[in-house]
Amino acid sequence: MPELQAVVDEIAEEMRATPLRGEVATYIPELARVDPRYFAIAIVDARGEIFTGGDADVPFSIQSISKVFTLMLALGKIGDRLWQRVGREPSGSRFNSIVQLEAERGIPRNPFINAGAIAVTDAILAGHQPRETLGEILRFMQFLAADDGVYIDHKVAASEQRTGFRNAALANYMRSFGVIDNPVEYTLGVYYHHCAIAMSCRQLAMAGRVLAHFDSEPSTIRPVLTAERARRINALMLTCGHYDGSGEFAYRVGLTGKSGVGGGILAIAPGKASIAVWSPGLDVSGNSRLGQLALERLSKRMEWSIFGA
Amino acid sequence: MPELQAVVDEIAEEMRATPLRGEVATYIPELARVDPRYFAIAIVDARGEIFTGGDADVPFSIQSISKVFTLMLALGKIGDRLWQRVGREPSGSRFNSIVQLEAERGIPRNPFINAGAIAVTDAILAGHQPRETLGEILRFMQFLAADDGVYIDHKVAASEQRTGFRNAALANYMRSFGVIDNPVEYTLGVYYHHCAIAMSCRQLAMAGRVLAHFDSEPSTIRPVLTAERARRINALMLTCGHYDGSGEFAYRVGLTGKSGVGGGILAIAPGKASIAVWSPGLDVSGNSRLGQLALERLSKRMEWSIFGA
Amino acid sequence: MPELQAVVDEIAEEMRATPLRGEVATYIPELARVDPRYFAIAIVDARGEIFTGGDADVPFSIQSISKVFTLMLALGKIGDRLWQRVGREPSGSRFNSIVQLEAERGIPRNPFINAGAIAVTDAILAGHQPRETLGEILRFMQFLAADDGVYIDHKVAASEQRTGFRNAALANYMRSFGVIDNPVEYTLGVYYHHCAIAMSCRQLAMAGRVLAHFDSEPSTIRPVLTAERARRINALMLTCGHYDGSGEFAYRVGLTGKSGVGGGILAIAPGKASIAVWSPGLDVSGNSRLGQLALERLSKRMEWSIFGA
Amino acid sequence: MPELQAVVDEIAEEMRATPLRGEVATYIPELARVDPRYFAIAIVDARGEIFTGGDADVPFSIQSISKVFTLMLALGKIGDRLWQRVGREPSGSRFNSIVQLEAERGIPRNPFINAGAIAVTDAILAGHQPRETLGEILRFMQFLAADDGVYIDHKVAASEQRTGFRNAALANYMRSFGVIDNPVEYTLGVYYHHCAIAMSCRQLAMAGRVLAHFDSEPSTIRPVLTAERARRINALMLTCGHYDGSGEFAYRVGLTGKSGVGGGILAIAPGKASIAVWSPGLDVSGNSRLGQLALERLSKRMEWSIFGA
Repeated sequence: MPELQAVVDEIAEEMRATPLRGEVATYIPELARVDPRYFAIAIVDARGEIFTGGDADVPFSIQSISKVFTLMLALGKIGDRLWQRVGREPSGSRFNSIVQLEAERGIPRNPFINAGAIAVTDAILAGHQPRETLGEILRFMQFLAADDGVYIDHKVAASEQRTGFRNAALANYMRSFGVIDNPVEYTLGVYYHHCAIAMSCRQLAMAGRVLAHFDSEPSTIRPVLTAERARRINALMLTCGHYDGSGEFAYRVGLTGKSGVGGGILAIAPGKASIAVWSPGLDVSGNSRLGQLALERLSKRMEWSIFGA
Repeated sequence: MPELQAVVDEIAEEMRATPLRGEVATYIPELARVDPRYFAIAIVDARGEIFTGGDADVPFSIQSISKVFTLMLALGKIGDRLWQRVGREPSGSRFNSIVQLEAERGIPRNPFINAGAIAVTDAILAGHQPRETLGEILRFMQFLAADDGVYIDHKVAASEQRTGFRNAALANYMRSFGVIDNPVEYTLGVYYHHCAIAMSCRQLAMAGRVLAHFDSEPSTIRPVLTAERARRINALMLTCGHYDGSGEFAYRVGLTGKSGVGGGILAIAPGKASIAVWSPGLDVSGNSRLGQLALERLSKRMEWSIFGA
Repeated sequence: MPELQAVVDEIAEEMRATPLRGEVATYIPELARVDPRYFAIAIVDARGEIFTGGDADVPFSIQSISKVFTLMLALGKIGDRLWQRVGREPSGSRFNSIVQLEAERGIPRNPFINAGAIAVTDAILAGHQPRETLGEILRFMQFLAADDGVYIDHKVAASEQRTGFRNAALANYMRSFGVIDNPVEYTLGVYYHHCAIAMSCRQLAMAGRVLAHFDSEPSTIRPVLTAERARRINALMLTCGHYDGSGEFAYRVGLTGKSGVGGGILAIAPGKASIAVWSPGLDVSGNSRLGQLALERLSKRMEWSIFGA
Repeated sequence: MPELQAVVDEIAEEMRATPLRGEVATYIPELARVDPRYFAIAIVDARGEIFTGGDADVPFSIQSISKVFTLMLALGKIGDRLWQRVGREPSGSRFNSIVQLEAERGIPRNPFINAGAIAVTDAILAGHQPRETLGEILRFMQFLAADDGVYIDHKVAASEQRTGFRNAALANYMRSFGVIDNPVEYTLGVYYHHCAIAMSCRQLAMAGRVLAHFDSEPSTIRPVLTAERARRINALMLTCGHYDGSGEFAYRVGLTGKSGVGGGILAIAPGKASIAVWSPGLDVSGNSRLGQLALERLSKRMEWSIFGA
């Protein structure tokens, strides 16, 4: 197996030279303005060492990647009761589809489509003040990243909120079935703000360690997640982490992962590596084009696929 | 880690004592008649050694498990052109749903739902005589199982064919979009017969070695499947192998697998084990209830989950 | 043909004796509390004479029947431009379904399903203050009914608003496609209030004259609606006026009509009669059970079916 | 009111001069070859007099218009038991959609979408030989048209059968739910042949008299259909007769009607006229463009709308 830093450098170089980058998300100006030429990669390996390439210290909007961490928090708070209001199956449709909600009486298919993530956020909120809950989420991210520099981009959150009629439809719809308990505007407020968390690839790869569940894991983060829960979240990331491109990601990359519309992907090679990549251009399924390509090559060269050497 | 045969014995014993076994499939008399008290397990490990428990030498109808092997054959014949007519995403709906076909112009979501498997069979048929193609599939199974005793249960095939109006609907529908080329009755004839292949858990675990891709793999079967193709089929089994219970299987078991309505499951721990289990009672998603439970315990006790130790 | 008052008396008597009355709507307490024993009928004939039976002067919540009148107002204001945001086809699904909205990019199928009626209300609102618009709608109803006693039941409106998450979902969803222009809470506020208009059958039958388009029509109401527009609204009532029971109403009754979940139905025999019936018990499609039965008998006995004598 | 022949001449002249004619159906060569310049109209009025314009004696493929007559036959044979296997509601989707069938357990929404008409044909077949049943349908049409020249175009039927995979999918799907009883190929054989009946507008308008239910109706055809059944079939034609353009036809034309993909429309002004129009060019919903336009003008000029003068 080749040396990791060499592979990272190689991939960063290859990505720099790749012209076909996909389309940057345009539904809010803050995302539309991001330069499509960015590419970043950061890896924490099993010994806790970190390897980086490209713009690994530039913060970007993690968007849906935050849903992995709110899921951890919600499971920590209410445990398996969470699954009474959110399913664990791939959705077979677009991330913001409302059709499945109607067929399944307001229960979203999984915690990573928008409806599911809103329901998870509602479970964390649980009657508290939005500001309080949001503070808790942010401190959790800073703790996992071991970096107080993680912050919320309030302009992004405000933009999302201003244009988020589709999410308001999803939330109201679930509320009509009692799947959401808190006032819709509270739940959506927290949701938009945790999606607007800004992190660098370095910070994100650090935060992902808890899912990779290294033997060398620091004693501070080990209590956050049992081994079983880490495995289960990894399973959900594999089957549902890339919207309607999840099957494709499993097929091509063979790592568990969660993407965000800001162009980031957090990928996990359980026991081996926590990986963050970022490139703003997206494919038709809304996943970072270069991010996926970089992970495909990394997984192959390092023989990290969970589906066999 | 405990000794494998001890774990196998333990699980076989526990399953024997489990009263809640689900419902045996009843849509054809040949399946309805099978005794729900059967339980079998067989495992081939990385060194090629075989471990069995329960009724491991009793043949059962492998049904949809055959779809993993026809997929190998089709990829062997026409390579990645296959993906022009079959997708690689989980379906988010029942195994025999026709709704998605309408929304996606006759292209089935993946090769493991009925429509997808029929399209794969059609690709193997490719203008040949049904009898010829069927012979080829059977010989392939006998070769992989290293056992000429693998056979087709013609009574099962005839029953399926007599009542298979839903599959005829799927096939005609795909034919209307040009996704199927051969006469519908030819394609369905081959399809029903390969689903009617009867194997024991011992034979099935042997046949699964090619997907586990052991270092010790015999030189005869190695050329059947490249490492990359094995990984990719494993990925498809993980995301789509248990109908609308695929997410749940990944979440609970953490192995790749493909189930059949006869109560069998072929599961793979890549590089570590090829596992076959069988118990005829099914859950609401159509997957063997005890089979899944046995695999969940096996995966946990042997620490074989692909999602982390 | 029999004498009309005799038929009215006969039907009122028969309905009184009918035990099977369906279920009163229960989703808000104000509707759930209504006594299921009420039955009322009122008819204005071509000469302008009025015939009544049962509780014809008891006001009830007209609910969706108001949508016929807001449609008139919207067409009066913006004419056929309205059809850029609302379709004219039956929906083939429940009144509050959101599935079709997703398939057809936020354009509701017709002005009588909830989504369509919300879009029509939004077109009337058109930047004005909700209070103003609501006043206009109420005065329009009072004018058509020739009775200042028509009023808005604010407790009903408040109840609807408090529990109307499903409608909020529809409205936000349409807003995400630009089908709705005004702030969602303004549009919904007006919508809930016009649905909460309370009228007696006598008042409602009077208000329906404008659709029956009698030769004897008073010169005051004639300018409200051209003959062509009246015909067209009648056509929409026929194809879409009873949610997913519209085909059944046409088949059994043969009049154009619009029902409301309060148990009222406004039915029109063009050129012959404007008819209001009310009985709070509903069938599975949400239409008044006795109301439909009474209209079926009336239409048959008076030979008023638009589909032939 | 103007004189009818003058209006017919006027409309025939206007249609001749209309350049925008829509697209001729192309899915089988026999339909694709028809000259788009044809236009025909024939009307039988309440006294039984016939008025014609354009190519009123040229036979064309009546296609789905035949479904009105097979519905009469099926109701004559098994009465209201027919409605156990076919609904009476508009479908809200395309004529050959299979989605609704899945949602509603194989029961087609109405007798005029393809699935529904296949189920109706199956009810007529009822264990008889296809040839026999087809003979019965043809003789029925000849009797109603009072013309032995009505015939079946076997080349059209053969073409439909050769390419009718979508209908085979619908039929097999319904068979899987027990909605169809006869061998699928028998039912489809009869279906394709009755859709391939060829008639002129003159013959079709004559055949439609039974639905118009004139006071002057000849004593020979009166027993075919009770007044109530005629009204009910008219209601179904109004709500479901033009596929997903039924609402539009009601809105614009205000007559009951059934269209066919061959470009014909049979329209009924109950008690006043039976009208056949034909022009091969279709709109996006599959209905004759000029046919609809001609009927809209006719209905307006003769004041025949069922929705008011």
